[in-house]
Amino acid sequence: MNVSVSDLESLCLEALARTGVSETDARTTARVLVTTDTWGTFTHGTKALRAYIRRLRGGGLKQNGVPKIVAEGPAWACVDGDSSLGMVSSVFAMNSAMAKAATNGIAFVGLRNNCHYGAAGYYAAMAIEKNMIGISMANDIPTVNAPAARGSVMGSNPFAFAAPAGEERPILLDMATSTVAGGKVFAAAAVGQTIPGHWLLDARARPTTDPASFSHAASLTPLGGYKGYGIALLIEVLSAILTGAAIRREVLSWTFSDPTKPTGHGAAFIALNIASFMPVPQFKDRMDRTIRDIRASEKADGAQRIYLPGEMEWERREKALVEGIELPEDVIASLRGLAGDLNLDWGRILR
Amino acid sequence: MNVSVSDLESLCLEALARTGVSETDARTTARVLVTTDTWGTFTHGTKALRAYIRRLRGGGLKQNGVPKIVAEGPAWACVDGDSSLGMVSSVFAMNSAMAKAATNGIAFVGLRNNCHYGAAGYYAAMAIEKNMIGISMANDIPTVNAPAARGSVMGSNPFAFAAPAGEERPILLDMATSTVAGGKVFAAAAVGQTIPGHWLLDARARPTTDPASFSHAASLTPLGGYKGYGIALLIEVLSAILTGAAIRREVLSWTFSDPTKPTGHGAAFIALNIASFMPVPQFKDRMDRTIRDIRASEKADGAQRIYLPGEMEWERREKALVEGIELPEDVIASLRGLAGDLNLDWGRILR
Repeated sequence: MNVSVSDLESLCLEALARTGVSETDARTTARVLVTTDTWGTFTHGTKALRAYIRRLRGGGLKQNGVPKIVAEGPAWACVDGDSSLGMVSSVFAMNSAMAKAATNGIAFVGLRNNCHYGAAGYYAAMAIEKNMIGISMANDIPTVNAPAARGSVMGSNPFAFAAPAGEERPILLDMATSTVAGGKVFAAAAVGQTIPGHWLLDARARPTTDPASFSHAASLTPLGGYKGYGIALLIEVLSAILTGAAIRREVLSWTFSDPTKPTGHGAAFIALNIASFMPVPQFKDRMDRTIRDIRASEKADGAQRIYLPGEMEWERREKALVEGIELPEDVIASLRGLAGDLNLDWGRILR
Repeated sequence: MNVSVSDLESLCLEALARTGVSETDARTTARVLVTTDTWGTFTHGTKALRAYIRRLRGGGLKQNGVPKIVAEGPAWACVDGDSSLGMVSSVFAMNSAMAKAATNGIAFVGLRNNCHYGAAGYYAAMAIEKNMIGISMANDIPTVNAPAARGSVMGSNPFAFAAPAGEERPILLDMATSTVAGGKVFAAAAVGQTIPGHWLLDARARPTTDPASFSHAASLTPLGGYKGYGIALLIEVLSAILTGAAIRREVLSWTFSDPTKPTGHGAAFIALNIASFMPVPQFKDRMDRTIRDIRASEKADGAQRIYLPGEMEWERREKALVEGIELPEDVIASLRGLAGDLNLDWGRILR
């Protein structure tokens, strides 16, 4: 089903208003989730709103939570998210990082008492318009195996970075530190498909193509074995151990756990101000040159095109802004469920 | 052959002194390379000294190069390495980052006119003794494929991070953004072994188990496909595009290219001062707790032990400091070749 960006935002705003979230916070949340859908990253967009609202109604997320800086220096801060929506806390934290980077060249902002923050890439991408380089990362409940282990050891701890270019589209990488994100396994399970043999390990740490046992018994494989495991641990250190957030098993599931309890997620944001290092046009020219040179690389047999990180997402977004978003079935089902939860009549949009 | 740490350092110092490098810079370089060997990372330790000295004698590296800060703010700096040895430039840059982080919580230092800097992990690990978290990264000549491309697109751009613990050993991750580092492919080629089918792509981007065509025709696979490609690009942005260093194909090979020319490598270093965020003992307690909890995870069938990143390396180092280093044949051959190049009699050590 095709839904316009503005209609999809309206649905989010209506649902959040009905739940008692302020208009400002609702706008922030809707913008993050709908932007994510325009990128085609449907696992982390408006599909998740129903679960966030379940937690808002349960009290584990606070409608009127106010993220605030609890400790800071010129180039760093620690933010307590006050169990506000993850989008609200994280936009606040990334804005704090950018404000500090503008005068200090770089800034690091850690965030505790966060919840699931959606697509890591959104916060990294906020840096682009300020001519900054953005980095974003967060921890999560363990769903990923580690070498020699059985079961889940680390979260699929996402990582994102974004950098502006000149005439070319910005670079945007948004990735889980597992081979694939858990959402892809859930999506396969929902439609009864098998998955490639290197995505998942069963309860005895043997490769499995059956997605149904994730995440209660099976665990995701770490990206490249010890490397993904190590990067996930770096993210755990920066977003949780250093910030005072819940660590690994202390984090609660934003989907499955008691909705009356805060999940305790941590996150971390870094902004680098390009103008501190070199004139912005010079940086952008160096970016454009690099992008074009990579794109012009010789292609493998049968390959049509070499993509830069984020290029597919920006092209999908450009299309979505003009033609609307083609929402997958699972997103529509979640939004319909949300309408039912809140007694909202969304028939005019979700036909 | 077993060589003591002090004997191996003496060899390095003698070779560097003979080449006209100051005692201070020689000590720095020897410490980096020998520490790397004690970790068992022989591809990036004293084996590389012969090639560095070839460049010093050729003039592409300067015996008396002096790295200096060319632009800075309270929490960032850009260093021109002046084509000094990569170890000299990089230790200077990481020390600058730590000095700035001590008063500003975090600091970023970019480095241009660097050369190959050896093991990324050394510079990250420098942060441990200062109770800081260290991050290090560098670009290199393209040797790694990108999705849909044929041939090499990105460098194997290494990345490392280190974080101190309390009673437990520090965490240390040091990784290439390719599936495996090129050194492992060269090592297999040197002894005529085949390699696993997912390490390397031939000139037409087809998987190959033959290491002999690397790096002139074959290219390494990126870690996890688009993810490793994207991380390599992040590293290129931070260490080269932002610092003014040579980008991708502009970088010269530290082993194969004309030794009279600077290689132009870039690098970047980040230090975070733990005490800015929380009392150091509290951080270390959180690290110890996390490490012990991960180690106590259930083990896969047949697995003896779950290692933390860096644990193998620290154990090898502890052993090496007591029992000496068991140098592999290729390292010994390189050191013997170096002795020949410089007319040094190392028979007393390299029997």
